[in-house]
Amino acid sequence: MKRKSQAESAVPRGGLAALSLAQGKRARLWRLLYASGPANGTLMVLPLDQGLEHGPTDFFPNPPAIDTAYQVRLALEGGYSAIALGVGLAEKYLREHAGEVPLILKLNGKTNIADDAEATSPAFATVEDAVRLGADAVGYTVYVGSPRQDQEIREYGKVRRECERLGMPLVVWAYPRGRDVEAKGGKGSLYAQDYAARVAEELGADVVKLHEPLPETDGCPEPYRSLREDAPARLRRVVRSAGRVLVLFSGGVKNDDDAAVLRKVTLYMECGATGVMFGRNMWLRPMDEALALTRRVRALLQRHPR
Amino acid sequence: MKRKSQAESAVPRGGLAALSLAQGKRARLWRLLYASGPANGTLMVLPLDQGLEHGPTDFFPNPPAIDTAYQVRLALEGGYSAIALGVGLAEKYLREHAGEVPLILKLNGKTNIADDAEATSPAFATVEDAVRLGADAVGYTVYVGSPRQDQEIREYGKVRRECERLGMPLVVWAYPRGRDVEAKGGKGSLYAQDYAARVAEELGADVVKLHEPLPETDGCPEPYRSLREDAPARLRRVVRSAGRVLVLFSGGVKNDDDAAVLRKVTLYMECGATGVMFGRNMWLRPMDEALALTRRVRALLQRHPR
Amino acid sequence: MKRKSQAESAVPRGGLAALSLAQGKRARLWRLLYASGPANGTLMVLPLDQGLEHGPTDFFPNPPAIDTAYQVRLALEGGYSAIALGVGLAEKYLREHAGEVPLILKLNGKTNIADDAEATSPAFATVEDAVRLGADAVGYTVYVGSPRQDQEIREYGKVRRECERLGMPLVVWAYPRGRDVEAKGGKGSLYAQDYAARVAEELGADVVKLHEPLPETDGCPEPYRSLREDAPARLRRVVRSAGRVLVLFSGGVKNDDDAAVLRKVTLYMECGATGVMFGRNMWLRPMDEALALTRRVRALLQRHPR
Amino acid sequence: MKRKSQAESAVPRGGLAALSLAQGKRARLWRLLYASGPANGTLMVLPLDQGLEHGPTDFFPNPPAIDTAYQVRLALEGGYSAIALGVGLAEKYLREHAGEVPLILKLNGKTNIADDAEATSPAFATVEDAVRLGADAVGYTVYVGSPRQDQEIREYGKVRRECERLGMPLVVWAYPRGRDVEAKGGKGSLYAQDYAARVAEELGADVVKLHEPLPETDGCPEPYRSLREDAPARLRRVVRSAGRVLVLFSGGVKNDDDAAVLRKVTLYMECGATGVMFGRNMWLRPMDEALALTRRVRALLQRHPR
Amino acid sequence: MKRKSQAESAVPRGGLAALSLAQGKRARLWRLLYASGPANGTLMVLPLDQGLEHGPTDFFPNPPAIDTAYQVRLALEGGYSAIALGVGLAEKYLREHAGEVPLILKLNGKTNIADDAEATSPAFATVEDAVRLGADAVGYTVYVGSPRQDQEIREYGKVRRECERLGMPLVVWAYPRGRDVEAKGGKGSLYAQDYAARVAEELGADVVKLHEPLPETDGCPEPYRSLREDAPARLRRVVRSAGRVLVLFSGGVKNDDDAAVLRKVTLYMECGATGVMFGRNMWLRPMDEALALTRRVRALLQRHPR
Repeated sequence: MKRKSQAESAVPRGGLAALSLAQGKRARLWRLLYASGPANGTLMVLPLDQGLEHGPTDFFPNPPAIDTAYQVRLALEGGYSAIALGVGLAEKYLREHAGEVPLILKLNGKTNIADDAEATSPAFATVEDAVRLGADAVGYTVYVGSPRQDQEIREYGKVRRECERLGMPLVVWAYPRGRDVEAKGGKGSLYAQDYAARVAEELGADVVKLHEPLPETDGCPEPYRSLREDAPARLRRVVRSAGRVLVLFSGGVKNDDDAAVLRKVTLYMECGATGVMFGRNMWLRPMDEALALTRRVRALLQRHPR
Repeated sequence: MKRKSQAESAVPRGGLAALSLAQGKRARLWRLLYASGPANGTLMVLPLDQGLEHGPTDFFPNPPAIDTAYQVRLALEGGYSAIALGVGLAEKYLREHAGEVPLILKLNGKTNIADDAEATSPAFATVEDAVRLGADAVGYTVYVGSPRQDQEIREYGKVRRECERLGMPLVVWAYPRGRDVEAKGGKGSLYAQDYAARVAEELGADVVKLHEPLPETDGCPEPYRSLREDAPARLRRVVRSAGRVLVLFSGGVKNDDDAAVLRKVTLYMECGATGVMFGRNMWLRPMDEALALTRRVRALLQRHPR
Repeated sequence: MKRKSQAESAVPRGGLAALSLAQGKRARLWRLLYASGPANGTLMVLPLDQGLEHGPTDFFPNPPAIDTAYQVRLALEGGYSAIALGVGLAEKYLREHAGEVPLILKLNGKTNIADDAEATSPAFATVEDAVRLGADAVGYTVYVGSPRQDQEIREYGKVRRECERLGMPLVVWAYPRGRDVEAKGGKGSLYAQDYAARVAEELGADVVKLHEPLPETDGCPEPYRSLREDAPARLRRVVRSAGRVLVLFSGGVKNDDDAAVLRKVTLYMECGATGVMFGRNMWLRPMDEALALTRRVRALLQRHPR
Repeated sequence: MKRKSQAESAVPRGGLAALSLAQGKRARLWRLLYASGPANGTLMVLPLDQGLEHGPTDFFPNPPAIDTAYQVRLALEGGYSAIALGVGLAEKYLREHAGEVPLILKLNGKTNIADDAEATSPAFATVEDAVRLGADAVGYTVYVGSPRQDQEIREYGKVRRECERLGMPLVVWAYPRGRDVEAKGGKGSLYAQDYAARVAEELGADVVKLHEPLPETDGCPEPYRSLREDAPARLRRVVRSAGRVLVLFSGGVKNDDDAAVLRKVTLYMECGATGVMFGRNMWLRPMDEALALTRRVRALLQRHPR
Repeated sequence: MKRKSQAESAVPRGGLAALSLAQGKRARLWRLLYASGPANGTLMVLPLDQGLEHGPTDFFPNPPAIDTAYQVRLALEGGYSAIALGVGLAEKYLREHAGEVPLILKLNGKTNIADDAEATSPAFATVEDAVRLGADAVGYTVYVGSPRQDQEIREYGKVRRECERLGMPLVVWAYPRGRDVEAKGGKGSLYAQDYAARVAEELGADVVKLHEPLPETDGCPEPYRSLREDAPARLRRVVRSAGRVLVLFSGGVKNDDDAAVLRKVTLYMECGATGVMFGRNMWLRPMDEALALTRRVRALLQRHPR
């Protein structure tokens, strides 16, 4: 794909301008927003941490995807803003393409073998690893509302400090999780996603990855329980709660209906998202279909410069 | 608002003079007491950590307040002594006004998704962050009486040491919390608030944020259980228990009756408080009403120079 | 009060000579034993950590005592060997009298809101704080026999190392505590106090604070259960178990009978104690009575040079 | 045994070339793959950590094996690629042969006295120990899926960082373990081994030790439960899931049938393994039989250059 | 007592020569083996940590033993290889005899007030303390098989590293302990002691203290359950399992029958022990009897040069 020149893309960068960033953070975030992918202030990120989070199970629908070279090729040929990988995959598969696609180094993760009642996500890499590998951001999961939130938040705080010290943008996977979240309506509820968005802002994320909130409000605390909002209203609400943090929406499980996927992207962007982080919806498709869908998502993002 | 000159405000500074302070601490605390807000030795602080502590729920009564620019504007136009924010909000919303209103950087916090039976508040920012951001104090929550008080106190101790090293005043949110507090009459009781006041002094706080003690004494240990004191007596008691620590009273949930709010302020000041830290009672009002109420609170504080 | 000259007091200093002390430790301990208080090798210490350990409850019988200036005045006018305070009180009340009465900085503590089944005492100050404040010793509580004794002992070990490094005498509050202690006869039993005395010696304390053992032996392990010893025999036993560690006995709850208090002091000294650490029995009395009793305790200690 | 010259062995080194390695890591891994043992890019490792993991029980079938000199002699005379030992054995038995056979220093381990429901493997040596002892790699167990996986992964992460800093290859014993693994089909299932292989890659291992997956799928999550694959298909699957991490298969409990052992080796190599790590199947045989079997395994590995 | 010259004692030093030791470790261990006590490669150690581990209870049968000067005198006059003390006793009682008898500084310990179901032994002194006090070794308890073995082993590992760095021999009290040990036949079983011996070797001890295994095998795992071995066979087995780690056998509870004690010593030495660590069996005897028994034990050790 052809990269946009800096001049071409640099016009409407509201999102970045509104942030108070150390110079290194700004430089790296600018690269992600205006010199990579759609390069118009939006973000199209290809994540691959499902092998750790869910196991090889996730690759069964598209066996070639077990080989990370598949996702790297997709990220490169599809012109993504960045690929998000843990240190193991980044070191083994991205080295030969270092510099060709920006890296978001995912620092922590866990398996799903034990259940999520007391979920916590340990780090196995550091912000210094990200610097060493030439990454343009780090990714970090925070399990919002987990019974072990004190450990979650404390460990997060150390990563945030390191990001500050090294000028590294911080992308927070803000995931409501744990038995108390389930008792209050579940991790997908508007209550949970809205709270997670705010937590990301309060904790000092630069970018937050969220899930589209579900319509069900059973079990949620008030005022959410009585709230009846349609999908756009729900999305706008969580984007608003994230404040000046750039919001990416997750794709979640694979949807075979391309048109539905594209409608989602349009909806997210119209509701204020900065972009999308779609994994399984991309790399579980055969390469030609994945590239075709990628091009259409890119085209949609092009229509929503930030 | 017009700032008082140092000469004008410096007369009755009993509170500060009674404290044994490192030079940096004194300098920053002097600024809060005599060069900002009422500037007469009292403190009028606007806190905003409810988005983390309670979620976006707290902003429903006044939707514009979800945007932290709202509170920043209120703090600036209302002439507050300081605004208390976590690192995420401070970095994203205060940068463009850095220096215009003093910052109390709140270092720790948690969500209320899990219950408070074993409450503990993890730090996600440091005293060095406060220095970097030009803050004039840090805020730190201590859950007094929690089953995890050992972790609470030990972590607090490290922050206190850092404050000492860097000359940073330390404002303690001294909050009784946890299953044992509930079993002994609840977090709002005079027993609990009085104990919390003393703990703040023993632990070396410079300023303590407390709640007005409730009249109920059911379940409290003696001698509190048999104690029958009116509101002023209760307030004077906790102020006395805080000793030379400056006391701020919290506003708690929003009270729509402006006159009642003002009566509270008067009562607090007459009972020896150094000031108030009212959040929801301020920023849940429409901006003009919030500014009007702020002006009246300020006027009250002006009548109680310290 | 008039201070004894070094020559006057330096005669019989068995206790100190028997200790193997780094030079700084020796210098500071010498000051406590021979240049302060009775200045004859005995110790008369005024402790004030009850506000943290028990809450303001303890001050109800003598309301002025809630103001730490009260205890500081008593320590100064009464001619105590030292006052034992946490960092919050030491910084706020002793500064204006720094040097006039030696400080034992109490480094750790907790509230009594949660029960003591798994008691542990977290530090909120450090040996370096003690050096900075000009203290002549640090105080540190060890809950002997607590289910969390591993944490207790490990944390203690770090403090001991710091004391060694900085030449700071270490006074251990050796308190049997926790559900297993209760199941074996209780914290006041001879079994428990005797064990605590030995633990203090094994762990390397310079001075230990103990309670007078109770006569009851129900529930204690053998041979204590079958032991029938009178008060002097019990006291001599725990002093012997403390070996070369100097023993201070606690006063415990207030006793209104002055004569009884004085008989206790005599008994303790005759049984080999180095002195007493009486808090509530002193500062819960009106100032003139407290000073009068102090003078009589001092006179008794004068009769037992070490 | 005669060592191959570098020229002789250096031809087909696909496995190594595909890895992105720091220079020190590459140098050491090259030595293991091309200058030791079969020296053709395969690995024949003799492990001895069973004495810690299972106790002396494991040596009963061949009593001389309790003396580590036995395994050292076997490693030397058998021409193994490396011997894997903990620090105690390495220091006491390998010193007199330092340099003669490469060492993989196993850093962590535990006894099997407590059950494995919450298994975690603590380190008692460091990567610096490995450097000091002249090791060519470190070994580290990760209990995949344990309820304490957060501790497992966090500690692993520190070791990985040290390996990076010191250029030390990292061999991960990726062992599914814990109550949740048992509830999902057991540690030997294809589900568990396949997940473990992927985890090793995601976490950044250089080499992974796995077990041959069992055919049973009862209790496994889908799609594994319904999967019906023969042994080669299962082996190829886990090798594929390990991606660019070199795979060694464990020998497990002793098999008295030499021919069966050799068929296993052939199968593993045909399915893409880089080699084998057989302990009990080797050193529980009398020395002459062990050496004879070793020679035959070596001959098989020679036929599968990498 | 008369010290043997180096020439006299240095002949048969198999045990030491077989160890791979850093220079400082070798120098200190040589001193213990060939320049102190029997000085023929055997070890006769007088331990005193029972006051911490069991409380003053242990001293009731011989009250003077509560004063550590008693054990120090016994060690000096009896010509022991070393005395093993914690930091508190070492600093207070050995200073005036520093250099006259080697010190093994015991670094960790606990009370027996809580039960041993989840036993763990916290350190309250460091290897640097041992260096500072001129010790020739450190002692460290590892509770083999405890549910908290991960903490035990991890903490042990740090001590081992420090010993390596500072050239300090490491004597491991390898004690099977905890609910799982009890469920598998108990801490005194051959299964448990044999496992403990191996653990000490795997973890890198220089010397290990074990207990003589009991004959009962009820509840033990196979093959131990079916094993019928006499006392010498059991002892030889655990000595063999300790490999090149020097084995000391504990004396355990006091045995009033001197002849029986001496038979034990003979048996231990004939079965390959390097020596004995008898505490209560020595210092619970009146001084003259203790010295007489010591002389006879010494004479026995003299007959088993190493």
